[in-house]
Amino acid sequence: MIRVTIFNEYVQEQLNKRVFPFQEKWNEEGIRHMAARADEIAAAHEGKAIHDTLKALVEEDSEVEVRHIANLEMPECGLTEEVLEDTDVLLWWSHIAQEAVPDEVAMRVRDHVQRGMGAMFLHSAHMCKPMQFLLGTSCTLRWREGDSEHLWCCNPTHPIAKGVPVCIWLEQEEMYGEFFDIPKPDELIFIGGFSGGEVFRSGCVWNRGYGKVFYFQPGHETYRSYFQPDIRRIIQNGVRYLANPEHRQEKLECIWVKE
Amino acid sequence: MIRVTIFNEYVQEQLNKRVFPFQEKWNEEGIRHMAARADEIAAAHEGKAIHDTLKALVEEDSEVEVRHIANLEMPECGLTEEVLEDTDVLLWWSHIAQEAVPDEVAMRVRDHVQRGMGAMFLHSAHMCKPMQFLLGTSCTLRWREGDSEHLWCCNPTHPIAKGVPVCIWLEQEEMYGEFFDIPKPDELIFIGGFSGGEVFRSGCVWNRGYGKVFYFQPGHETYRSYFQPDIRRIIQNGVRYLANPEHRQEKLECIWVKE
Amino acid sequence: MIRVTIFNEYVQEQLNKRVFPFQEKWNEEGIRHMAARADEIAAAHEGKAIHDTLKALVEEDSEVEVRHIANLEMPECGLTEEVLEDTDVLLWWSHIAQEAVPDEVAMRVRDHVQRGMGAMFLHSAHMCKPMQFLLGTSCTLRWREGDSEHLWCCNPTHPIAKGVPVCIWLEQEEMYGEFFDIPKPDELIFIGGFSGGEVFRSGCVWNRGYGKVFYFQPGHETYRSYFQPDIRRIIQNGVRYLANPEHRQEKLECIWVKE
Amino acid sequence: MIRVTIFNEYVQEQLNKRVFPFQEKWNEEGIRHMAARADEIAAAHEGKAIHDTLKALVEEDSEVEVRHIANLEMPECGLTEEVLEDTDVLLWWSHIAQEAVPDEVAMRVRDHVQRGMGAMFLHSAHMCKPMQFLLGTSCTLRWREGDSEHLWCCNPTHPIAKGVPVCIWLEQEEMYGEFFDIPKPDELIFIGGFSGGEVFRSGCVWNRGYGKVFYFQPGHETYRSYFQPDIRRIIQNGVRYLANPEHRQEKLECIWVKE
Repeated sequence: MIRVTIFNEYVQEQLNKRVFPFQEKWNEEGIRHMAARADEIAAAHEGKAIHDTLKALVEEDSEVEVRHIANLEMPECGLTEEVLEDTDVLLWWSHIAQEAVPDEVAMRVRDHVQRGMGAMFLHSAHMCKPMQFLLGTSCTLRWREGDSEHLWCCNPTHPIAKGVPVCIWLEQEEMYGEFFDIPKPDELIFIGGFSGGEVFRSGCVWNRGYGKVFYFQPGHETYRSYFQPDIRRIIQNGVRYLANPEHRQEKLECIWVKE
Repeated sequence: MIRVTIFNEYVQEQLNKRVFPFQEKWNEEGIRHMAARADEIAAAHEGKAIHDTLKALVEEDSEVEVRHIANLEMPECGLTEEVLEDTDVLLWWSHIAQEAVPDEVAMRVRDHVQRGMGAMFLHSAHMCKPMQFLLGTSCTLRWREGDSEHLWCCNPTHPIAKGVPVCIWLEQEEMYGEFFDIPKPDELIFIGGFSGGEVFRSGCVWNRGYGKVFYFQPGHETYRSYFQPDIRRIIQNGVRYLANPEHRQEKLECIWVKE
Repeated sequence: MIRVTIFNEYVQEQLNKRVFPFQEKWNEEGIRHMAARADEIAAAHEGKAIHDTLKALVEEDSEVEVRHIANLEMPECGLTEEVLEDTDVLLWWSHIAQEAVPDEVAMRVRDHVQRGMGAMFLHSAHMCKPMQFLLGTSCTLRWREGDSEHLWCCNPTHPIAKGVPVCIWLEQEEMYGEFFDIPKPDELIFIGGFSGGEVFRSGCVWNRGYGKVFYFQPGHETYRSYFQPDIRRIIQNGVRYLANPEHRQEKLECIWVKE
Repeated sequence: MIRVTIFNEYVQEQLNKRVFPFQEKWNEEGIRHMAARADEIAAAHEGKAIHDTLKALVEEDSEVEVRHIANLEMPECGLTEEVLEDTDVLLWWSHIAQEAVPDEVAMRVRDHVQRGMGAMFLHSAHMCKPMQFLLGTSCTLRWREGDSEHLWCCNPTHPIAKGVPVCIWLEQEEMYGEFFDIPKPDELIFIGGFSGGEVFRSGCVWNRGYGKVFYFQPGHETYRSYFQPDIRRIIQNGVRYLANPEHRQEKLECIWVKE
């Protein structure tokens, strides 16, 4: 079994019901705007939260078991050493509270990826701290809500593209556009084209130490992308591709060798 | 001075006036279709041929001198050893008669690139023999006439992107779309997005031996892309980037070294 | 079952017994030198030819079946359309008669790789025509007979490195050294260090269309490298990694799409 | 003029004369061992410190001016916002006190590189925090003191290799060997081979945002590598290659674009 942990920020889903401690720094209009969206998110996710959608999605693969659901308000964001040791692949969805993840937690995730854990960063997680710490770039981009997207495969034999057509149409997706400030991907698999004319490197893999990172762009919180079979298939393929328990290292350190 | 040679197939411009020996194998409807287009090409290129447009374009850079204009009907396609020895950067435009270039000429071009000559393949030259011999792939793609294009830069510090905006709009361009069968570019600089929804790796560099190859997608024969200042600038930047006379090798061979 | 075809030039093994038509162009001293080595080759390969060694090696993997043994003197080098259609992975060993392979055969091999066949080029095959046509570079290098080699893995999670230690010692190997004129590998897996001080990118993978190419440096004809378990394991891993029957394409061509 | 800042940890040079606050955590034998080496360092560096050697080296290029010398004990390690704003290329030498650099300073360096500053990490700086934060890997390796090294160029047309021979011999260098845990280099320029048989990716470039990172392995504190003309030339070439003031960004942030 592939052991999956899902981290969902889990803020936007609740913003119409309660007050988060870290929202103090945000402006009020932004909070009202986001809170108003909570119902839309619930509608898109069939009354549940984003982590529920992702859990059902990855467990469609009978070889996958979700071992932990983590969120921002759990102690250590729910990502303790024990949880990460028990994880082959970590899925990460986050958006409006990236700064609320402590550096220490983000570096712990980074260290586990370097030692062999897989990490899949989804949609607006492009600017979460663990992704920035693993890639070393700002991961900034151009964006706008309300486009449709054609998602094209430019690497048709890649395991993550298995079983999906060369083009997937997403009737509604948030536009993410170049320049996307990422290191040159080790494997560029998908490029998105948006109805507004923008393009985006939407599916990218990087090797980091003994682990791999997969960034995948679709998945705006109020849209139905994660319910589209081809998108589900890509994420499921990604979990398989990232799982790498046989190479998990206990520790990475320099090795002194005598003459 | 950077010494440039321009190879233009130079067939479509004349197809309404004369008969080419190699057109025997083509179907008659195709010939009529292409011949009817000759006037359109002339109009787009201000009464001249594609090589004239390209000559004026590259010579806007005062450091560049076009030394030779070559075409398909010259002996050895105009690309003798002497011409290639006298060339720092070769520009190549071709379309409907790729097969008419002898393998021997294409391999001579390949060999000069390996020894340090730069080569820029433009638009429909994606399937010319020298490009296929240098890249090792089929260079096939998806296509359609009659779109507009947004050309995005995904590598803003690359010398070829110097002085151009992050997005260039081309009111008319032929759609070229993924999957584009090329090796992973050493440097991916531009991605095009077309009005029909397709995307394309439109500006790519590969190192081959002591030389470099730049493929650049805009430049359909009946459109005005080569008269657009930002496109001109990219091609001019490309000539500078590819020019590499100080590294030109006389011969590439294995080197035996004694103990 | 993975269907393997082995191409062995099969010249040096017989040079003490017979005269080959293409050896006319070689100098006599070179022929005498090589002919004198035939016994050494036989000794290293336990009385058999290089293709026999390779056949036994790959068939240690019970999922692999060698379907065809091809050599230089067979019609079309034994590599007809039918043979290549029946091949998932082609192993290629060649050395002194690279030029004797017709361009047409080499391009047929190239085309099958582009359509999805895997190709493994071994040791002195670095300059065979199919490898040059697939990579687009001269593949020249520095060389000397009579070193020992440390073969280091710089990509420990790569499937081709599965089950082998970070360093493999080869008591006798021919020195192959940089500058090795290859395109930047898509995956660099092994780097060799030789007793004379040279280094070499010894294990490299490139994607070409729907197929993959693996170059692997050990395997000098008079040495015992192919009988060393870790080297055998790497080649067996390579066969598995290159096999890709589910993606084999019938034909690669441009696709016209209507608006 | 290219504006260079040199960061030298500046600890080992003084370890025989004084006590550093952060050395409390080290074991006493290690301190004695390192302190005993201070005279050797002084001898290798002609009575001066490592930053003096590097300053003289880079200023041999008349286009280069060293604007700031920074070390571990200065407030903020001497790397304030003002200093980094005044820097086109940062050279970094560090070894035994990597942990003493505050995360905040290391992230400030990272941010400036992302915005366009060049960074050259030398020798034992492979594990300094800014390099780890920029690359996203552990940068661990295999090591031993007391080898000689052949440094081979595997990218002969790269600007950093300009004017140096294909092989440079270093009579004394510390062995650094694979597996070197780095991301796949965007440009691999040098590979070292050591007298003990190890190999190492010794000269690597990565793009990070609008800036570049160059790691270069030679430079053990008690050896004379930085006084060898070819090594000096490589570092001088590196400064020129990394300098990129025309692309320096004020801030990297996501860009919202309206429909």
